[in-house]
Amino acid sequence: MPSPIDFYFDFSSPYGYFASHKIDALGSKHGREVKWRPFLLGVAFKTTGGAPLPSIPMKGPYHLRDMLRTAKYLGVSYRHPSVFPISSVSACRAFYWLDAKDPKRAKELARALYRAYFVDNVDISGADNVVSVGAKFGLNADELRTGISDQATKDRTKTEVDGAIAIGAFGSPYIVIDGEPFWGSDRLDQVEKWLATGGW
Amino acid sequence: MPSPIDFYFDFSSPYGYFASHKIDALGSKHGREVKWRPFLLGVAFKTTGGAPLPSIPMKGPYHLRDMLRTAKYLGVSYRHPSVFPISSVSACRAFYWLDAKDPKRAKELARALYRAYFVDNVDISGADNVVSVGAKFGLNADELRTGISDQATKDRTKTEVDGAIAIGAFGSPYIVIDGEPFWGSDRLDQVEKWLATGGW
Repeated sequence: MPSPIDFYFDFSSPYGYFASHKIDALGSKHGREVKWRPFLLGVAFKTTGGAPLPSIPMKGPYHLRDMLRTAKYLGVSYRHPSVFPISSVSACRAFYWLDAKDPKRAKELARALYRAYFVDNVDISGADNVVSVGAKFGLNADELRTGISDQATKDRTKTEVDGAIAIGAFGSPYIVIDGEPFWGSDRLDQVEKWLATGGW
Repeated sequence: MPSPIDFYFDFSSPYGYFASHKIDALGSKHGREVKWRPFLLGVAFKTTGGAPLPSIPMKGPYHLRDMLRTAKYLGVSYRHPSVFPISSVSACRAFYWLDAKDPKRAKELARALYRAYFVDNVDISGADNVVSVGAKFGLNADELRTGISDQATKDRTKTEVDGAIAIGAFGSPYIVIDGEPFWGSDRLDQVEKWLATGGW
């Protein structure tokens, strides 16, 4: 069995959201599992000197346009969130809390959180809204709320975020196949060829 | 006749070089001329706070890998230059000097300069090497040398670079179709669809 594809993303990243629609189908087509690994882009920015896109002159306005255009190009539902970007630490913690118990369901929760933020315009930066999305998704609200603030969940999240930075994830999505990194939803064509051919 | 496609690029940009292999065929397929507009990315960086890729932690090493991989993926000859990046002001001036007399030939000179830098490992930052590339290309070396340092050429180059920044070019390549901007050689798929459909 070949090793899984690592799919690093930030819950606040439109390009991560776009890639989330395609990555599992790509993996499945080539007999690979996909391990979803949410992390915090802001932590990487401390190393790279990066900044949230809207704050960057010239590049910011371009990307706001590119996000809307790319969503339509890909046929992905997208409404640019009123509050953007956001801290996604609560969403990350909810994911890793559930991942410790049921990785498959954690992936579905991630899709629900992405959808809440990028389609339904729910600001998922606060724990309350994350719990509310989780409850609609079918989780027990009290368990989820306790889980998010549990020290073990916080520790696991920190370990995962540190691990993402350690392997070089400086952007979202950041996809790693057998050690080969691909940054950006616009590298999925290369990801597909890499999976099909084993690399070049 | 539809308006030309504006192709902004820096002579020191691998992704600009990659796009230079495809942009005229794309234009021609859709009945559009392509206007090549070299500019200086370093000037845009003063506004965006951007920096040359190799100087950026995490992102730099990734991109050196991505450039080699993407060249192979696209089937474009590529040897990463020993000196990278470079100031491309002399190359820009040579281009605009020739462009004032013969735009079609200026485009061919741009291809020769790109090839010298990204295939033959010629450091085209200095006027001497630019003149040498121009001479091999068939230009009169003395005329080119004089042309590069001519005040009119310098003024034209400055006007073009300022114009590129004014329309928002913060990266290379930066391609504009009827006012719609596309950044990056990885947006050529959207460029093609935009040309075919008139936008979405």
